[in-house]
Amino acid sequence: MRYDRPVSTDDFQRARSPEAKRVREAAILDAARRLGEQHGVRQVTLTDIAAAVGMHKSAMLRYFETREEIFLRLTAEGWREWAPAVCASLRALTRPVADASAPADADAVAAVFASTLAARALFCDLLAQAPMNLERNVSVARVREFKLTTRGALAEIVAAVRAALPGLPEGSVVDLVAAATALAGTFWQIATPSPEIAALYRADPRLAHAIVDVEPRLARILAAMLRGLQPSGAGGQ
Amino acid sequence: MRYDRPVSTDDFQRARSPEAKRVREAAILDAARRLGEQHGVRQVTLTDIAAAVGMHKSAMLRYFETREEIFLRLTAEGWREWAPAVCASLRALTRPVADASAPADADAVAAVFASTLAARALFCDLLAQAPMNLERNVSVARVREFKLTTRGALAEIVAAVRAALPGLPEGSVVDLVAAATALAGTFWQIATPSPEIAALYRADPRLAHAIVDVEPRLARILAAMLRGLQPSGAGGQ
Repeated sequence: MRYDRPVSTDDFQRARSPEAKRVREAAILDAARRLGEQHGVRQVTLTDIAAAVGMHKSAMLRYFETREEIFLRLTAEGWREWAPAVCASLRALTRPVADASAPADADAVAAVFASTLAARALFCDLLAQAPMNLERNVSVARVREFKLTTRGALAEIVAAVRAALPGLPEGSVVDLVAAATALAGTFWQIATPSPEIAALYRADPRLAHAIVDVEPRLARILAAMLRGLQPSGAGGQ
Repeated sequence: MRYDRPVSTDDFQRARSPEAKRVREAAILDAARRLGEQHGVRQVTLTDIAAAVGMHKSAMLRYFETREEIFLRLTAEGWREWAPAVCASLRALTRPVADASAPADADAVAAVFASTLAARALFCDLLAQAPMNLERNVSVARVREFKLTTRGALAEIVAAVRAALPGLPEGSVVDLVAAATALAGTFWQIATPSPEIAALYRADPRLAHAIVDVEPRLARILAAMLRGLQPSGAGGQ
């Protein structure tokens, strides 16, 4: 009988080995990820996460200081997962001429950023939440860890963009990644209003400007930016 | 004696004429604006605003449904104030040749957006807060009013940019304004961490990428975007 009942708070409280702690942390992160995907990060409370993972809130606080720490961990995880995906897509771009060392097309590079970000709804949500909310309710040590993770991911992506479009200075590519992630976060927030507000936008043609389709708008903006960053006459013109 | 005491809740409750209501609303908006500028919008509660304006929270709710409605009104006010400022600066741009009908320089247009936004800290804060928080806790009628205000401001700005840079299609200029306002909002959030986190960024050279200076980054990104949007060989090259 004992093993048939749902996982209880008691089981979690007995889990003290490092491995058992990792299992608990992963369960908490999984629950937060699922709830964030379903409802949007902004709606998810620590109580919701505790209920979904079957722990008391007080027990969960032994693993994470705040709900913001949980979502900041998911943001870091998002960067670690997105960076190699962007880099792989950039390496796989067909060059405009049949020469593997030729620069890629600026529009194609922009499309890689737009499509890989738009495909990651929770990551877009977290990208907007991080500077406004998540980094403001965790300890300095957690922010440091988070920033070192984004630093590593940023360096990977910058190197891959510069391999695809060799003429670009490093600072310009850092600006590109900053623009891509900031716009993805904000456009995602604009593109996912509540159902009542979405209905309002559809009903009133004067509000058509409020309807945003994240991927094409992001692709257009980043493509223009990349064309403008390239030395005159370089790829993508 | 009666007229020497501070304005009381009773005075506010007696204010029922349309003019008196407008005065109360303005007092509430003034208090919210001041608190938002001092502490950041995210920190300001309805209770803070009520205390600053000298009203009971319950009395204030007769003027505004929620704290989000108050800040959404300030966001609309921000658009109405910013739009003519951008338009005036665009009209005042020195043309690269001594001909008032010559196109302006793309970099100069980008600099107008960056400088007018960076000079409006509260508006930048509100631009990021609006889609994520403010539009989500007010009635549909209030969101409609807000969106009609931004629609008017957007149309004004789009017309002024197209007068300055005549080759640009309307859709591209809408993208430009969307990018400028989304980036200003997010970069402002990133650029104003808590004092402890700001100290961390300064102390650890590995975290230099986390320090963002809003105006120059915004100017660089928008200038690249505008150069990339213009037909080859047009102004600003």
